[in-house]
Amino acid sequence: MKLKAMINSLNTNLDIQKSETSKIENVDFENLAFGRTFTDHMFVCDFIDGKWQQPKIMPYQAMTFEPSARVFHYGQAVFEGMKAYKDNAGKIWLFRPEANHKRINISSARLAMPEFPKDYFFAGLETLLKMDKEWIQPGIGNSLYIRPFVIATEPAISASPASTYRFMIICSPAKAYYSGKVRVLFAEKYSRSADGGVGFAKASGNYAAQFYPTSLAQEKGYQQIIWTDAHTHEYLEEAGTMNIFFRIDDRLVTAPTSDRILDGITRKSIIQLAEDNGVTVEIRRVPVTEIKEAARNGSLKEIFGAGTAAVVSPISAFEHGNEVFEIPDLENSYASKFKKQLQDIQHNLSEDKHGWRHEVK
Amino acid sequence: MKLKAMINSLNTNLDIQKSETSKIENVDFENLAFGRTFTDHMFVCDFIDGKWQQPKIMPYQAMTFEPSARVFHYGQAVFEGMKAYKDNAGKIWLFRPEANHKRINISSARLAMPEFPKDYFFAGLETLLKMDKEWIQPGIGNSLYIRPFVIATEPAISASPASTYRFMIICSPAKAYYSGKVRVLFAEKYSRSADGGVGFAKASGNYAAQFYPTSLAQEKGYQQIIWTDAHTHEYLEEAGTMNIFFRIDDRLVTAPTSDRILDGITRKSIIQLAEDNGVTVEIRRVPVTEIKEAARNGSLKEIFGAGTAAVVSPISAFEHGNEVFEIPDLENSYASKFKKQLQDIQHNLSEDKHGWRHEVK
Repeated sequence: MKLKAMINSLNTNLDIQKSETSKIENVDFENLAFGRTFTDHMFVCDFIDGKWQQPKIMPYQAMTFEPSARVFHYGQAVFEGMKAYKDNAGKIWLFRPEANHKRINISSARLAMPEFPKDYFFAGLETLLKMDKEWIQPGIGNSLYIRPFVIATEPAISASPASTYRFMIICSPAKAYYSGKVRVLFAEKYSRSADGGVGFAKASGNYAAQFYPTSLAQEKGYQQIIWTDAHTHEYLEEAGTMNIFFRIDDRLVTAPTSDRILDGITRKSIIQLAEDNGVTVEIRRVPVTEIKEAARNGSLKEIFGAGTAAVVSPISAFEHGNEVFEIPDLENSYASKFKKQLQDIQHNLSEDKHGWRHEVK
Repeated sequence: MKLKAMINSLNTNLDIQKSETSKIENVDFENLAFGRTFTDHMFVCDFIDGKWQQPKIMPYQAMTFEPSARVFHYGQAVFEGMKAYKDNAGKIWLFRPEANHKRINISSARLAMPEFPKDYFFAGLETLLKMDKEWIQPGIGNSLYIRPFVIATEPAISASPASTYRFMIICSPAKAYYSGKVRVLFAEKYSRSADGGVGFAKASGNYAAQFYPTSLAQEKGYQQIIWTDAHTHEYLEEAGTMNIFFRIDDRLVTAPTSDRILDGITRKSIIQLAEDNGVTVEIRRVPVTEIKEAARNGSLKEIFGAGTAAVVSPISAFEHGNEVFEIPDLENSYASKFKKQLQDIQHNLSEDKHGWRHEVK
């Protein structure tokens, strides 16, 4: 395999500094808050003088930055979310990691940041996972959340692209992101992204922009917002940390990707799994009015979110126009069915006919 | 004055660590690239446990941050741009600084970040300016650019507002931001902000989002983009680092502020100066078609940008729909007239009838 050969040749060139001790003994894997506990090592590679420098693995640690580093001022920062799984034989698996590599470069390009080479990405990622493999717990629902990200480090506050960047990978052991059912608000006033904007990118600024409207939703008892198109608020788009699927009778409906909507890897996997199961998937604009009418006449069977952190997250109610719609529980829901099929593939418990699993060895 | 009393009482409580040496001897004030040289000190105040802690002034220096600090991942970062001026008697002046304090809190609120108290803001700012006053060069065109900013520091990568923040002020001696005439492209495909989004805030993510489209414009020979509304691209809005004014015959036209457009302090000062000069100002939507038609029939006399960094920046040409429009040079332009009036007020060379100057003493 060509990629494997590239990685092996690079591994020998990775500058590796091992942590002298491990923090793992202090971690309660049964009680993990999302994204607060990090493994013993991290991967770091700096972009200087027009090229990516010596990639390094070092103990996870705080780092120094100039107060004028452009990331603090102009939001030149992109990230990815991935997970590693351990099967019952102790093998480590990634899920469609090439899609994450491709997407972080799409995000970077949109923010005028340099692309990160595939061989560096995989060599760093796989070496890091092998060094911190004890942090990956086996069992459905357990994973190691992987956060590759790139930030602009150049110490200069003029509003233009930086000349220096840092690519990093940090890892955090994870349980499910949302536990329990999720209640959502359909956006009527605030927006997540503009046509011609950066909504399709995992750009840092897309996230901060959602926090305040989401806090208003939370005050009303909703965990998330399903964003609508910025211009009319008539079409349902995505949830910011998840793409969204609607089941109407036995059809599955989801919005097409666009420059406003993230091309989710879990989203496209769910679409494929649905097709594998003979379920009709309609990728088209989703009018708010249609979903409300379907909720009223009983044809709306399910709404669920899909994303790497959230996996598949059933939605139990939505509010729009001061009207609350409860979605009754459903036996054998698509959400539970596709979530199980997805997790079985991720944890090496079932056939992987689309070649989505990637073993780290 | 109540504010002054607050500041004086706070000054005694500021934790001040003076730099042992100054870097000023190494600075060539005649050849300053914007935003790359910083003064000897900076102001720092952390938000922890729900409140702003002891404010500090310390030597300008790099600082340590966790790789998981939320600012690196979710773009929770806002900033301001201000300038300090030194008059011929050596007095130091700020221009409408209360507007900057008000606006950084408006920006923070939109990104679910805590507001920064007015007394801390002014005590930190004024003490810092007095300590670094040698860095402020007298003379029109010279200033000390001041960058207050707030970043989310909490080391946790869940997509929600941070619980800890750092407010900082750093300062950089400046000449004019754009030198020479500026050629601009009217946006036809990319967008800066959405209705219901964060375009009105000085949110970090708004800036990175402009870099790639601007780089495409630069390849075509344009320094800046004038952004249009995201939905139709038919109305001219702002330039990302500047608000935009159009002079048609003897009237001045500019877009109204909205949730997409920054409420620029230079913008509102220019509007006031125009009115003081008996110039009719129309604050209304500005159709691209109207400006193109005015350019064709000769009634478009000027376009200029207005912003703290750029001050007043004349625009000499624009392109839209693959058509290039050159704007002939004009004697006694509004741009040069209002720029002079503005700078005279800023440098304490003329009467300040609106009370815009604020002495630092």
